[in-house]
Amino acid sequence: MRKLTTEMFCVLTVLSMISLFSCAPDDTNISSYGEDRAQIENLQARYMFALDFGDLDTFVSTFTEDGVLDIIGMKWQGREGIKNGLGNMMPPVGEDKPEALNTSDDKEEKPLYRATGRHNISNIVLKIEGDNAVGRAYWFHMGNGNPERKAALDSYGYYEDEIVKVNGQWLFKKRSIYNEQMAEWIGSDKNPCW
Amino acid sequence: MRKLTTEMFCVLTVLSMISLFSCAPDDTNISSYGEDRAQIENLQARYMFALDFGDLDTFVSTFTEDGVLDIIGMKWQGREGIKNGLGNMMPPVGEDKPEALNTSDDKEEKPLYRATGRHNISNIVLKIEGDNAVGRAYWFHMGNGNPERKAALDSYGYYEDEIVKVNGQWLFKKRSIYNEQMAEWIGSDKNPCW
Amino acid sequence: MRKLTTEMFCVLTVLSMISLFSCAPDDTNISSYGEDRAQIENLQARYMFALDFGDLDTFVSTFTEDGVLDIIGMKWQGREGIKNGLGNMMPPVGEDKPEALNTSDDKEEKPLYRATGRHNISNIVLKIEGDNAVGRAYWFHMGNGNPERKAALDSYGYYEDEIVKVNGQWLFKKRSIYNEQMAEWIGSDKNPCW
Repeated sequence: MRKLTTEMFCVLTVLSMISLFSCAPDDTNISSYGEDRAQIENLQARYMFALDFGDLDTFVSTFTEDGVLDIIGMKWQGREGIKNGLGNMMPPVGEDKPEALNTSDDKEEKPLYRATGRHNISNIVLKIEGDNAVGRAYWFHMGNGNPERKAALDSYGYYEDEIVKVNGQWLFKKRSIYNEQMAEWIGSDKNPCW
Repeated sequence: MRKLTTEMFCVLTVLSMISLFSCAPDDTNISSYGEDRAQIENLQARYMFALDFGDLDTFVSTFTEDGVLDIIGMKWQGREGIKNGLGNMMPPVGEDKPEALNTSDDKEEKPLYRATGRHNISNIVLKIEGDNAVGRAYWFHMGNGNPERKAALDSYGYYEDEIVKVNGQWLFKKRSIYNEQMAEWIGSDKNPCW
Repeated sequence: MRKLTTEMFCVLTVLSMISLFSCAPDDTNISSYGEDRAQIENLQARYMFALDFGDLDTFVSTFTEDGVLDIIGMKWQGREGIKNGLGNMMPPVGEDKPEALNTSDDKEEKPLYRATGRHNISNIVLKIEGDNAVGRAYWFHMGNGNPERKAALDSYGYYEDEIVKVNGQWLFKKRSIYNEQMAEWIGSDKNPCW
């Protein structure tokens, strides 16, 4: 009898511990729509900061090792491939530094300080199954690349994403970018979502 | 004694199983602020894709069977009612297809390709109690309906939402849309949120 | 033996109950990335509604008692300090009420109804450890303060946030606001995120 109850104690303790651990706030272990979506939203936002501030190393770290960035007109695979491909399209980091305040009269010729461009993501739709997610979202871009540094919206489009969980971390496996300011990159006229 | 410990075993096993199941990643069972908010954000984003791509069947599926869409100037109830009402306001799907690239000189008269309009949601506030949620959020719209297909912001406003969970799925029970480009639809000058 | 099994019953029941409660949808108890992020996103959105609708009491309630709002050019500490400082910069609430519809011909002089301004948050990045979070996000502002009440984007920038959980509620401990339309407030040219 003593033996039996001791065994029971073990079995029940294990069951209880399983219950406890399945709820513990360990991000790499929790898997639910809310937890996964939160991690993926964070990834998508970090991607934007890295892109707009020219931080290519962080940018490519949001992709899997063999991840694909497809901007329709061009397509790169792998972190090095993306870094080189995108790097060639972007102004060299640091070249566009802030200038001294312009106190002359010809403000239209000399800008007051460096220009910036900012990508934003919205309307994030995610279908998640286990370690695989399919995403759709809108993006839009604003910038102030004019002498007055006046903010203006200048383009928009949408993303089609494949996102995977690798060693507990969500990463882009493939991001396709449609741009509705370019006839060739405009994307579908059918709902690309569900 | 043997009987007692067997009963104990059953009771405790049941308790442990309840614990396990209450944590299982079954989206229809989990109910917490984070899980519910994630599902509702997804709903709100799917609504936008369906609206902008003229997918009225998917659009009305984001409402309950007797759901209400109130754009202040007009108001429709039920999926069929919303589909008919909104359908009459939208350009027929497919009529605005991409045109061949315009290579002539008079680019101002013939657009290069179809125009698009994109609604975006931001600043989502949600108060959730059980299967009922009350929402507030901002919306803004951009489009490129000009010969150059130049992106431009053209309107904004806010939503007041009632959202309910039906058979494990969050759906709009009522969405009211305030539009700050229309004197009659401009909405409150007091904080509509909390 | 009877005593032992009764003790066991108690221990195991307690273990099971702990498991149950650790999963219960009690927002103040749950702590996981998804739950915390959901609460913080809600806070960030409520802040925007309160700001744009001139609801200063709600606005300052999104900060801790000794919270700091640093708009780089100016900096205020404490709820009263923020309320007074920000209040002096904003038009008095209610002074900008909707006017009667303008039916005269000189529409350029008399606006049709009150103007509004709307701040939006996007690209929210959050690093959360226990009751402390560090945040980065983009913001952009649109308004219609012109006679035609035409919507236009007018400024953008980014936030650096310190957010803490006090008595189960996430609040801003410090928000710093960078504004890329002001040479002095433009912020870093290195990625402020990770």
